[in-house]
Amino acid sequence: MSANFLALAQPGVQQLSPYVPGKPVDELARELNLDPAKIVKLASNENPLGPSPKVLAAIREELAELTRYPDGNGFALKSLLAQKCGVELNQVTLGNGSNDILELVGRAFLAPGLNAVFSEHAFAVYPIVTQAVGADARVIPAKDWGHDLPAMLAAIDAQTRVVFIANPNNPTGTWFDEQALNEFLQDVPEHVLVVLDEAYIEYAEGADLPDGLDFLAAYPNLLVSRTFSKAYGLASLRVGYGLSTAVVADVLNRVRQPFNVNSLALAAACAAVKDVEYLEEGRRINESGMLQLQEGFRELGLGWIPSKGNFICVDLGQVAAPVFQGLLREGVIVRPVANYGMPNHLRITIGLPAENSRFLEALAKVLARG
Amino acid sequence: MSANFLALAQPGVQQLSPYVPGKPVDELARELNLDPAKIVKLASNENPLGPSPKVLAAIREELAELTRYPDGNGFALKSLLAQKCGVELNQVTLGNGSNDILELVGRAFLAPGLNAVFSEHAFAVYPIVTQAVGADARVIPAKDWGHDLPAMLAAIDAQTRVVFIANPNNPTGTWFDEQALNEFLQDVPEHVLVVLDEAYIEYAEGADLPDGLDFLAAYPNLLVSRTFSKAYGLASLRVGYGLSTAVVADVLNRVRQPFNVNSLALAAACAAVKDVEYLEEGRRINESGMLQLQEGFRELGLGWIPSKGNFICVDLGQVAAPVFQGLLREGVIVRPVANYGMPNHLRITIGLPAENSRFLEALAKVLARG
Repeated sequence: MSANFLALAQPGVQQLSPYVPGKPVDELARELNLDPAKIVKLASNENPLGPSPKVLAAIREELAELTRYPDGNGFALKSLLAQKCGVELNQVTLGNGSNDILELVGRAFLAPGLNAVFSEHAFAVYPIVTQAVGADARVIPAKDWGHDLPAMLAAIDAQTRVVFIANPNNPTGTWFDEQALNEFLQDVPEHVLVVLDEAYIEYAEGADLPDGLDFLAAYPNLLVSRTFSKAYGLASLRVGYGLSTAVVADVLNRVRQPFNVNSLALAAACAAVKDVEYLEEGRRINESGMLQLQEGFRELGLGWIPSKGNFICVDLGQVAAPVFQGLLREGVIVRPVANYGMPNHLRITIGLPAENSRFLEALAKVLARG
Repeated sequence: MSANFLALAQPGVQQLSPYVPGKPVDELARELNLDPAKIVKLASNENPLGPSPKVLAAIREELAELTRYPDGNGFALKSLLAQKCGVELNQVTLGNGSNDILELVGRAFLAPGLNAVFSEHAFAVYPIVTQAVGADARVIPAKDWGHDLPAMLAAIDAQTRVVFIANPNNPTGTWFDEQALNEFLQDVPEHVLVVLDEAYIEYAEGADLPDGLDFLAAYPNLLVSRTFSKAYGLASLRVGYGLSTAVVADVLNRVRQPFNVNSLALAAACAAVKDVEYLEEGRRINESGMLQLQEGFRELGLGWIPSKGNFICVDLGQVAAPVFQGLLREGVIVRPVANYGMPNHLRITIGLPAENSRFLEALAKVLARG
């Protein structure tokens, strides 16, 4: 006889449903016996440019030190980020992806009896990190697919410790402007940590969207989280960061695993921060690809949610799951978002021009079949 | 006015003291203005052989996929480990180093009001993962620097959910035999998860030490944790694993971050599992280096704790901190273990023959100065 270790797990953990990632190319190739080289993956908001030569050079240089532990303090990367972001070194927290930053927040500040507020159709990791520590999730209905910030504000109570907001939001691509953010931050009680998730901000910089860093000095309860997985093209390596007051960073660093970010990620991110051209080329590719997809949707008579990210949600006007499956059979992987309460949409990552064309052709074919 | 976010953190987190890693070479070079190339680091139980060519080849092959997310299921590595360890795929949990596995156990099974049992002079991460979730740590006095398994057994009560044991133990290098492990496992209540930390087992295989895997089938409350950071030489990349029943693995995988192990670590570990020669050469270097250090200690009239790891604790017969500082000034980094309740010892990682000599010469010099 043996004990039931599922029943012995913490109550929040017992009810956790793991995050469902985009289907990996190799997995689809195995399942449908397809040539991996011919599969197009537009499912995980990855950078279609492929790796930057400068980043590859930095990684190669670091390989000699493979048997050594990483610098647990991430001195070099934190110095560069502090300089770039106009903050002190002790305001930076490094994460194993920005997923790690979100989780550190949950573990440091949430617990049973406390709650976190976030929006409907927001990133799946917010409910996971809340649930994992047994806290309550207050999911606020979206407005036009985006955050309803006044309603989120109204949902905050004495037990609220964290509010997650994303700008632009994944998977919808929706955004809010500087005035909306400012009004929100002014009204959030000071004991509530506002986590502003800017995973896609590098694609969105411009007149429409505020830069979260501009608000750090005025709001000690603000944490801005960012990642190297999207515009910087380092998803494989896992590196993200949080910017906050030194006090909040100190708390998160206590919970952080001592070697949470690996050495190659640290070296790669240092090179990526300085690689302005890669970022700019990625933005150009994204802008033209976004127009290419919208034009394709228009021709197919499909609607979409306007997006400031490197992805777009197309409205199929019908349940999307069969279309998703049809695309898989054509060797095209996109992202179903039914688990985000969006059963009629698919989220498409903006790819290279040829990848976007492959997807649009496959979509036309699948839809024509009915 | 702003809120006090340290006071708002969870009680366990407020009292956390972060793990203190071995001093990185670059940090010492900065502090003392030394040439990094001339510094010898024997502080973190890293593999002195440097990277395996087969591992480097596997990493280079993976670089083309740098902008893609890792396979969150780690299919290829888990398949290899399952085969090597004689378990099913669903009994394997991958971690961002075995530190991650230890932390997943704490987060899944510990909470305020519950406790974890472990030994004095055991790995510093056991108290950290216990404290981080607000559980109680029951630290059982060591016997001859090693685990007192009967005393640990006696300390288990109805609120105990986890017992951490290490074989061999870090930082002492002490070990227990098959009979002792078997008696212990027979008597641990079935609701208590026994985490058998075998981070150094590859250095210790032989007649003296049991293989934890041999006990998995008989004890559904056993989890064996292992790492690629030591004998496999991949400390920089962060990859470890846990082996347990499928139920325990399912629980840990719910808590695990979806992309906790990066792509280069997955590829490197797959190559490392098959690289038998690298492992064997590392063991030979370790055995001869262990004898070299013991001979050196004998000549200096110093005692030591017999060790089955790739490190050894030397007894200086005096407070070790000034000797540690003296060694730093000589460009030799070793590990002080006062925070492990061992103020008179230093832990020395077994290096290459020339590194061991450099250390012994520096130690003789520092001790001669008085």
